Amino acid sequence: MIEIERKFLVKSDKFRPEAQSATRIVQGFLNTHPERTVRIRIKGEKGFITVKGKSDEKGLSRYEWEKEIPVKEAEELMLLCEEGVIEKTRYEIRAGNHCVEVDEFRGPNSGLILAEIELTSENEDFYRPDWLGKEVTGDIRYYNSQLSKKPYTSWTT
Amino acid sequence: MIEIERKFLVKSDKFRPEAQSATRIVQGFLNTHPERTVRIRIKGEKGFITVKGKSDEKGLSRYEWEKEIPVKEAEELMLLCEEGVIEKTRYEIRAGNHCVEVDEFRGPNSGLILAEIELTSENEDFYRPDWLGKEVTGDIRYYNSQLSKKPYTSWTT
Repeated sequence: MIEIERKFLVKSDKFRPEAQSATRIVQGFLNTHPERTVRIRIKGEKGFITVKGKSDEKGLSRYEWEKEIPVKEAEELMLLCEEGVIEKTRYEIRAGNHCVEVDEFRGPNSGLILAEIELTSENEDFYRPDWLGKEVTGDIRYYNSQLSKKPYTSWTT
Repeated sequence: MIEIERKFLVKSDKFRPEAQSATRIVQGFLNTHPERTVRIRIKGEKGFITVKGKSDEKGLSRYEWEKEIPVKEAEELMLLCEEGVIEKTRYEIRAGNHCVEVDEFRGPNSGLILAEIELTSENEDFYRPDWLGKEVTGDIRYYNSQLSKKPYTSWTT
């Protein structure tokens, strides 16, 4: 499957009252190579293994393959992951016809809040809530695989 | 699951008439790091994703996690793999109470034939067919993940 999504910084707390759900996510990476990341995720009561390919030039679309797996197996696989497990809370928020996923990071990535909107085509329009900040689509520093190695609180810019 | 196995070179062709099955295997690696390999395999009509951890000191036992996946998905994931896809024929041969897997490699690993015996404990005894050669358990050069990067025909020793 090819996933098309745009990513934004979140510039205010106003997204909170709009959230329809908040789910804790813990995830690690068996591989953080940008051409082929392999992610192990525990999201609430579910486990997942996810493989993502390289992004296209604009950073908009990317091959993604995912399988649900038992949480116990995800916990075992998490132990094999590279250092830098990511912890975050995911909020799901309706914005027009789309569902926006807002990730509030914890631990070494505290202070970072990212919003992602999944689209069905690269030039699809969407409603922009006023808490949506600067677009960071295609900026590799904001990939979770890179945040696990170079966390937000270690950035100097 | 922890997998315990011993690996041997095969020193003659005499294993062939003993084979109960021969199956073509094509496999690639999303990660060849010895601490966490991620393998995509197509074996006959089935696809698999397999994660293996680091071996113990003796190279005998190793964590292994595997899920069967549709061949079509395995083919897609194979395209993301690192260079150095491995092709081999696997023969299954009964030896006493054990099943021995003999892998005859093709392409850049032509000339290499390896036998693997899975055991239930590290000091379990087993019948040794006379075509079984030198033991190479724990020799990382014979890991498939390493053979994909440094194939047998490129070895100088």
